[in-house]
Amino acid sequence: MNIGAWPVSTLAFVFWGCELIPIVSFVGKSNVGKTTFLVRVVAELKRRGYRVATLKHDTHGFQLDKPGKDTWRLAEAGSDAVLISSPDKLALIAGTDHDLTPDEIEATLNLDADILITEGYKRGDKPKVEVSRREKGSELLCREDELLALATDQPYPLNVPQFGLDDAAGVVDVLVEKVIEPARGRRAEVLVNGKPLPLKPFVAEMFLGAVEGMLDALRDTEGAREVTIRLRLR
Amino acid sequence: MNIGAWPVSTLAFVFWGCELIPIVSFVGKSNVGKTTFLVRVVAELKRRGYRVATLKHDTHGFQLDKPGKDTWRLAEAGSDAVLISSPDKLALIAGTDHDLTPDEIEATLNLDADILITEGYKRGDKPKVEVSRREKGSELLCREDELLALATDQPYPLNVPQFGLDDAAGVVDVLVEKVIEPARGRRAEVLVNGKPLPLKPFVAEMFLGAVEGMLDALRDTEGAREVTIRLRLR
Repeated sequence: MNIGAWPVSTLAFVFWGCELIPIVSFVGKSNVGKTTFLVRVVAELKRRGYRVATLKHDTHGFQLDKPGKDTWRLAEAGSDAVLISSPDKLALIAGTDHDLTPDEIEATLNLDADILITEGYKRGDKPKVEVSRREKGSELLCREDELLALATDQPYPLNVPQFGLDDAAGVVDVLVEKVIEPARGRRAEVLVNGKPLPLKPFVAEMFLGAVEGMLDALRDTEGAREVTIRLRLR
Repeated sequence: MNIGAWPVSTLAFVFWGCELIPIVSFVGKSNVGKTTFLVRVVAELKRRGYRVATLKHDTHGFQLDKPGKDTWRLAEAGSDAVLISSPDKLALIAGTDHDLTPDEIEATLNLDADILITEGYKRGDKPKVEVSRREKGSELLCREDELLALATDQPYPLNVPQFGLDDAAGVVDVLVEKVIEPARGRRAEVLVNGKPLPLKPFVAEMFLGAVEGMLDALRDTEGAREVTIRLRLR
């Protein structure tokens, strides 16, 4: 269901970021049903075969570990990062010196996914899907030009595709067309001292070409699709 | 306290891995006091100003998240990775298709640390510190040539530095001299399709030189120490 009169294809928004995995932020007022809608979106993306990473912004701080557990003791002793790995799962809890941006998180963690969806980060610079519900008021958090789509039970006079709160499939159509598919293909991302470096397309192609050339000279690199190079220069 | 008669400097073990952050595994029989000793080692490393990441191998599987919480719901919906970020902490829980090695974890997560200490991975290929206690028997899990040090209350006729169970500082001296300091300086690490590529020193230097040259041609790259390049080749 597309409540708005504007077909998805007229959207001016075009994905071009410097990240390898495209990022979209789902935002909305508190208790509007963001997580409930997002759960449906994730399930629909998985049904279509995409790999999905989700990121929740918790501005208040969180506690995952239990006091007394080994990992808790290692954290208490001062570990900058505590990891737990089992045959089917990996977990990391790391201290940070600032509230990381989704870009910094995506670039640092080398996630293996087709899309990273954040819940929150309404003041970030990522394309957004806003969830709104009449019961919580009609005012939106986002400007029209930030919005990729609206999930709502009330129509807005905006040039933005609008879908019902039960229409995760409609929002997923937009994500696939406007975000996931445009991010496919050759891409390069460079971090310097942990900060993503904005890359013009020809510079990205310079890195891709140079590294491809070097890999050609090495053994066991046939079939290379994803390459990560980490360097300490001094 | 060094129970053994062999000074640390005669150790044949020399650190050279293909990882950016050196990895050491603390092993020992169950309930021998591995975590208790490791907590002291972490605290001593922090006291000396090092950044420490710890990794616990949990062969049985673990549960960090609580049923009903938003992040749990996003995981249940099928997210391949769930992240939570707050102003002072970042957490990741990701599904894996196999029991990752410490090398794979180190290379994927771009950790910011001077050393990664694992608890467990006794069958891995990393240098090891074994914790042993008379009460749990005298048999060791490790071969002499795998051991960087022993933390124990019983002496062994081995050419391995041995320290008392209260002597975390002695073990830290060995870690600093044999592992942390040799891993400093220029280093390169390359992952192809998620797998670390073994690099000869001249190949590592080729990558370092080529990337330094490219960065010189770009703005905002002065003072680059750590550089990560992520590429999707097709």
